Order: sequence, then structure tokens, then C-alpha cells
Amino acid sequence: MAESWVNSAERIGADLHVELTGPGGRRAALIEALRDAVRSGRLPPGTRLPPYRSLAADLGVARNTVADAYAELVAEGWFTARQGSGTRVATGVAEPLRHAARIPRKGPPRARGPQHDLRQGTPDASAFPRAAWSASYRRALQQAPNEAFGPGDPAGRPELRQALAEYLARARGVRAEPDRIVVCSGFAHALRLLFQGVARDPGAGRGPGAGRGPGAGRGPSAGRGGSVLRGPLAVEEYGLGFHRELLASAGVRTVPLPLDEDGARVDRLERERAVLLTPAHQFPTGGPLHASRRAAVVDWARARGGVLLEDDYDGEFRYDRKPVGAVQGLDPEHVIYVGSVSKSLSPALRLGWMVLPERHVPAVLAAKGEREAWASVLDQLSLADFLTCGSYDRHVRRMRQHYRGRRDRLVAALAEQAPHVAVTGVAAGLHAVLRLPPGTEASTVKAAAWQGVALDGLAAFRHPAARTPAEDGLVVGYATPSEHGYGAALEALCGVLPPG
Amino acid sequence: MAESWVNSAERIGADLHVELTGPGGRRAALIEALRDAVRSGRLPPGTRLPPYRSLAADLGVARNTVADAYAELVAEGWFTARQGSGTRVATGVAEPLRHAARIPRKGPPRARGPQHDLRQGTPDASAFPRAAWSASYRRALQQAPNEAFGPGDPAGRPELRQALAEYLARARGVRAEPDRIVVCSGFAHALRLLFQGVARDPGAGRGPGAGRGPGAGRGPSAGRGGSVLRGPLAVEEYGLGFHRELLASAGVRTVPLPLDEDGARVDRLERERAVLLTPAHQFPTGGPLHASRRAAVVDWARARGGVLLEDDYDGEFRYDRKPVGAVQGLDPEHVIYVGSVSKSLSPALRLGWMVLPERHVPAVLAAKGEREAWASVLDQLSLADFLTCGSYDRHVRRMRQHYRGRRDRLVAALAEQAPHVAVTGVAAGLHAVLRLPPGTEASTVKAAAWQGVALDGLAAFRHPAARTPAEDGLVVGYATPSEHGYGAALEALCGVLPPG
Repeated sequence: MAESWVNSAERIGADLHVELTGPGGRRAALIEALRDAVRSGRLPPGTRLPPYRSLAADLGVARNTVADAYAELVAEGWFTARQGSGTRVATGVAEPLRHAARIPRKGPPRARGPQHDLRQGTPDASAFPRAAWSASYRRALQQAPNEAFGPGDPAGRPELRQALAEYLARARGVRAEPDRIVVCSGFAHALRLLFQGVARDPGAGRGPGAGRGPGAGRGPSAGRGGSVLRGPLAVEEYGLGFHRELLASAGVRTVPLPLDEDGARVDRLERERAVLLTPAHQFPTGGPLHASRRAAVVDWARARGGVLLEDDYDGEFRYDRKPVGAVQGLDPEHVIYVGSVSKSLSPALRLGWMVLPERHVPAVLAAKGEREAWASVLDQLSLADFLTCGSYDRHVRRMRQHYRGRRDRLVAALAEQAPHVAVTGVAAGLHAVLRLPPGTEASTVKAAAWQGVALDGLAAFRHPAARTPAEDGLVVGYATPSEHGYGAALEALCGVLPPG
Repeated sequence: MAESWVNSAERIGADLHVELTGPGGRRAALIEALRDAVRSGRLPPGTRLPPYRSLAADLGVARNTVADAYAELVAEGWFTARQGSGTRVATGVAEPLRHAARIPRKGPPRARGPQHDLRQGTPDASAFPRAAWSASYRRALQQAPNEAFGPGDPAGRPELRQALAEYLARARGVRAEPDRIVVCSGFAHALRLLFQGVARDPGAGRGPGAGRGPGAGRGPSAGRGGSVLRGPLAVEEYGLGFHRELLASAGVRTVPLPLDEDGARVDRLERERAVLLTPAHQFPTGGPLHASRRAAVVDWARARGGVLLEDDYDGEFRYDRKPVGAVQGLDPEHVIYVGSVSKSLSPALRLGWMVLPERHVPAVLAAKGEREAWASVLDQLSLADFLTCGSYDRHVRRMRQHYRGRRDRLVAALAEQAPHVAVTGVAAGLHAVLRLPPGTEASTVKAAAWQGVALDGLAAFRHPAARTPAEDGLVVGYATPSEHGYGAALEALCGVLPPG
């Protein structure tokens, strides 16, 4: 096998990996090595080659050898040389190793999206506060102690936990001490942390024989003692299918709770020890959990030693009345509060947080591991600054007005063009529910797709085991379209609704 | 239950959550609500209260009511008012809800570290290129298309995959097309992605009956079809215990391969279909995998349809000869190459990458999910810029010289003060191995701890099932101490070594 050489390039602009073997002199060998590097794709088109004197020094060959090799490859068309831009790999000559067949990907829905994207779930990407966030990031990086660049504390940066404790108390009525906050990468990560290891606990999730038995765990980590929560988990009968799937693949059975005009029927909780709710703004149907139900679920948790898992995914966005505080404020020892920046700032940041009952903190930290393995510490510091300097409040307020404007345009368009369609769940959040005549949902979603309008029907969110009669409706996200495309999206939406 | 009110604060600087109930007038109610918010910890000491005119407007009370309430609470000592700084919650008066008992944490070892930290695993945190990284982040944020702030592609940002493909080809001899690269949060995440679902595959990892059976998966995600790789996995007999534990808790059995002066004995591979190696710089013993072994492991993989999992954790740092290129360059279809910025930049960024054989790409993407749930998209864009503009090369070169200097000082100190102790594995990386007389390792590690020197013995890295005779030695990380503390750390180290 050929000996492999890499130019260590202490003084030049770039490392270059070539293999100096082959028949003939060093010049021929170098030419062949470079040619091969281009041919194999290791030196892609446009790559800048190091100055030949540096490469010569690093390879231990004469400078002329490299100069000659470059000249030869320029002559052959492999390289191009232009004044001021140095020698580069030419474009259009490379035969890459092998063209990977384009692999069909479940890419991000927005990347090559439909003409009008009215799917729920994403804030307006064009409204990300680039300048303010960039300023916070720079300040955070300047002020960070050196140890911030070492391995991270799995609980999260203390600066961020302090800032979150203050913000959540002030804005969401959460009773949060920094020591009860654990940073994560979003709600899905929180679910994984809480239920990690369910599959290893005998009988935890799926009835007798479901566990993998006591011999399943090996090594120290397995001795940490199972999952934080155990199934089965009660959930609202409408919710995010992705969460149900994630729980199912972790071995957690979910049991649907019916919804009525006051929110989830928490009086129907049975043997479950944990319930997942979206109290501030039921997802996706849109109502808040009634005060009496809020009290009832806390009473239930106290009486049964249960836990409410509170998904406060868009609690900051409420338009027509004061925001509803978090249920967590009623009883921090029986509620696990989870929030993130995915709706308020951007899902691109991958930052979220859990506020935990004291007894759950050690187990969640154990599930996270000895060092932070997920959330970027620098982004954490940046968010701490962003919260502390008031940028977060300012952004949320601006977005509240922005989304309220979008919602008002949606409501007005429907009132004018489809007055027979009732709109619900519009007091808050980034989406609305359009109620449709029975039996028309599926065909409407299909018709919309044909017209380039992407949206989901209520059926996409319904728990497979839900027992209440299914209602027809559309879930319309009004945050995703660009500002200039929103009017056309509304036009298109109204055009595909069933006639009254 | 009291109705919960949150100040929606459209025009003021902050949201304030108070409950306007209680006997007496609104002034009394507001005072009690604010007092309660302080008492319960929801308004922590130092919090700035909103201007009273704004709070009044938002609560629908007279401005004087709020002014009176603030004045009363200042008089009572709950608040303080200073010109220019507004009204704030006083420090020292709050009785927080309940003082959470300080929970003992497995915090980051560096946070409250020992006097001299010579543990391996972390680059010099004080050397993080703050200014250059900050500049890249700002540029990336300015130039990012809007869609970058939406849900991320689980493969990673195309800008980053392109930049990595070029860098890895040039500097590490990796044959990487962007389509074969999947971004992750580090090596541990890569392991999780590759072996996720092993526990669900009957017979995959741990012999008959180990799986949870075909009924284990429910919902669409379970139908994705098991893990990318299956156990048992051959590993080097010395390695990171954390990785072994992680694999064990995923249900993957690891089988140790003996090491000799040429690296792992890949001729001892038996029925395993996958092997995890650190070819550029065996961790922690420090040698490169010999060229003949590199060829042999590729031959084995081809013959048996096996896969080499190549952990290139510190491949950029080689001091006395040219860096050894990645084995992946020999056969991209039989090697999964994994790297990260954890050693080259900082573990705080949580960014890594896998270069995959074409056939494994879909399964790894499926394991990641439909959207990026882990790696910060903004940090990805920043790294792409950092690579493209040459900052990464410059940083690696600077750190190479920095660490070479540290290594030289270690070797010199030992030559002078403990010439009987052999130092090995010093041609590369951020740590060295000090060979000790038989039977002295444990007592030396203990004596070091007594003297405030944190380091690990070789035993900490040894596979529990390793069969070759254990050798005594210390693994000394020379990157972690601060520059001004390094001399003292070396002194202290030499002071605890067993006499010759």
C-alpha cells in the first residue's frame, strides 16, 4: 500500500494530501498524485492550491519540482492559474470518485416547499432578529469565562438558567429556581430524557414482559436506574403525531384524553401516573385549559403522586386577552414545565428547557450524561444575554403584533370569502383551526395540495385510539409564508374551501 | 382558584405576572400580589419592575394605584427605587418558595477542578479563537437565507457539508461528497445514531431473546427498520469507557481487540461485522495504526461485508511527521468516518460529522428524524464560514504549535526529573502515556490526587474483557491546564511519580 503523506503546512494556507509514489521522478509522481487527488474528488473544483514554495518545503522536494508540476497541470487543464487568485483546481475537469445516486431525503418541508405553505409549526423565518441575536452572541463570546469552552455542565450554563428563571417567573408565572432548570435541545429531547430507559424497565411501559429484563443493562450507565417517568402516558386526543411516535418508539404507551370546550377532560385520568398537556393553548385545537381543569389536574397529581408534563410551546403568543400563566406556578412539585425558543425565535437554535420538580432533577441530569452532549454552550450563553438585555422581550412583543396582524388578515379573508367556515383557536399561537362540514376534510386537503397550498387536516393530529367522534377541520399555520406571499396564500386557501 | 393575570406589556419593557385578587381595593390587591410574587420567588431579587404607567395600562387600573403600590412596597423594603435604575425588587428580602437542597451534581470536571488538571480529553479552553469565530458567526447570520431559520435538514446545512467535504479531502484524505456527510453533535451522537434501535432488533446485539420482539415498535418511526449497524462491535482493548457504556446501554456488546506496537490486531477480528478504531492516533495509548493493518482492516471489511467505524478524534494534531490520512480514503464504501470540533475547537460547540458509505446514508438520516433536532443550525453555518475563510486551518496550525510546545515541555521535564519513566504516544494528540513499573499505577494515581493532580491511569481505559496482560501507566493530558499553570502542573506531576 502506498505510504500516505499529508503536507503539514505549518506556514502555508492549507493542508494538502497527496501520495508521493509512482514510477518516474518526483515531478512525475507529484503530478500523478495531484491528478489523482483531483480525479478522486479529494481536491474539488475551485480548491486553491498552496503556494509552490510552501508545498515544496513541506514535501521535501525542490521548489521547481512543484512549479513544474503546477505548470504541467495547468497546461493539461486540471488547474487554472490567475494573477491574484493563485493556482486553483479547474472547474469542469474533475471526475469525482463516484457520483452518489441522489438519495431521496425526507428533507425539511420548507426547503423545497409548496407554493403556499400554511402548515403549522414554524415561526416566520424571515423575522429572526439577526442583528440583536448576533450582538448577544458576540457579547456572550467576549464575556464568557474560559471554562465555558471546556466540557459543558449537562444542567446547562448557570448564566442561562438564571436568566430563564427570572424570565419564566416574570412572563409565564413559572416558579423556577435555576437549580431546577435543565437545558435541552427542544421538547422532543425533553421527552427522550424523561422516558429514556423505559424500554429497559420491566413492565414500565407496555405491560408484562415488555422490558428487556434485568440483564439488559451493562456498565455503569445502566445502573443509573431506569427512566424518569414511566408509561402509560395520558395525552390529549389531538396532538403532534411526532411526539406520539417518539414515545411509542421509546416503548411508552399513550392513552388519549377527550377534549371539550374547556380543554382536556382531566377527570378521565385513570391509572396513568403522568399526563402531557398543552394548557396555555391546546395543540392544535387552540383553546386554553379552563381554570377549573387546571386546578383539577394539580389535585389529581397531588392525590396520585402523578406528574403533569406541561408543554408550553407558544405560551408567549396570545392576542386578545392576558396570557395564561403556566400551570406549573400552581404546584412546582407536580409539574414538569417544558419550553423552547422554537416558536419564539427559531427552531434552528435547538434550545429548550425543563423546569423540574426537585425530586426529578438528579434523574434527568443522569439521563443527560456527565457532560453536555447536545445543546451548544455558546448558543446558551447567547440566549442568556438575549434574555437579560431585554432583546427577547422586545422580539416577542414585535412578533406578537406581527402574528396578530396575520391572524386578523386570515379571519377577515375568511369572513369575506368563506363566511360559512368557522374559525377557532385564534386567540393565541401561530395557527388557526377552520371547521369544515362533515366528510369534507380529506378532499379539501387534497384539493389544496393540487392548488399548491400545503396544510394539514385535523385527522393528522388525532390519536389513533381517540374515541370521541372525529370532526372535520383544517389546521392553518399563518406564520410560515413570507410577508409578500401571505396575501396570495390566503387567496389560494379561500379558493379551495368547500362551498357553504 | 384565583384567576391568573399576566401583564401583556405590549408597550412596556417586561411582562409581569401578578394575581389581582384578595380582599380590599385594587391597590391592596396589587400590593399583595406583588408581595406574593416576590415571596414566592417569581420576582427574584434585582428584577426590574415595569414603569407604573405601563403596568397600570395593562392591568386596567389607575396609574396612581400602581404608583402607590410601588411606593408602599419600597417603604416596606420589598422594592428599592433609584434614579436612573427604576424600581427593582430589593435584594435580601425574598423568601423563596423553598430552597431546593443543593443537589450534588456530576458537574463538568473542569468547573470546580483540581489544582492541576492533567486529565485527557479537552483542548485548551483559553485558546478558543473568540474573535475569528465571532466574525464567522456574524457573517453566517448576515448571509444566511431565510429558510435557514426554519426547521433544519437532518443531514446538516448544505454550506457546512460542502465546506467539510473540501476540508476533509484536503487535510485528512477523506473522500467525502457532501451527500454522504451527516452532521451530528459529536462522536457519542454518532454512536447513538448508528446503533439506535439495536435493542429492538431481535438477536441484533446480545444473543437470542435480546430484542423486544416485533410488537415493540408502534407508529411510523418504528417501521423504519432497526439500527444502521448491529453488534457485537469489536473495539480496541483500550478506549473511552464512556463509549463502551453508551454502547452497552444501547444493547451493543463490545469485544476487545488486543493492541501491539502496530496498533489494533485486526487479524483477530472474528464474527463481528463492525469494528471501532482510532487509526490516526490510538486512544489512549497513542500510536498510529500501521499501514499493513490499515490495508488489512479494509480487506477484512470487503471480504466480510463489514464496516470500520473510524474515530478521527484528533487527527489534525501530529507533531513530528506528516499527519496520517484517514483510512476512509482507502475505501469509502466500507468505512464510516467520524470527526468533530471537540478537540480542534471546543466541545462547547457540540458539532461533529459522519462521512458514510452510500448505502448507510438513508438509515442514518432516518435515525436522525425528519428535522434537525440536535445540532444548532446557526453554529453549523458559522463553522462553514470558519472552514471556508481559512480560519479553521489557521487555528489548527496555531494549536499544533501550541500543543507541540506543551508536549516538549512535558518530555523535557520528565527527562530531567524522572528519566526512568518512559513516555509514549507523544507524536500526536493532546495527551501522552507515561509507562510505570508494574503494580505502581493505582497508588500513583491516588498519590497524585492527594497532591491536587488529576489524571487517569491506563486501567481506567481498559476494556473489562481485555485478555492481554495489563500494563501500568498514566494518561497525561497536557492541553487542559492554563498556560501560566502548566509549569506548576508538570512540577507536581514529576513529584508524584514512583522513584526509579
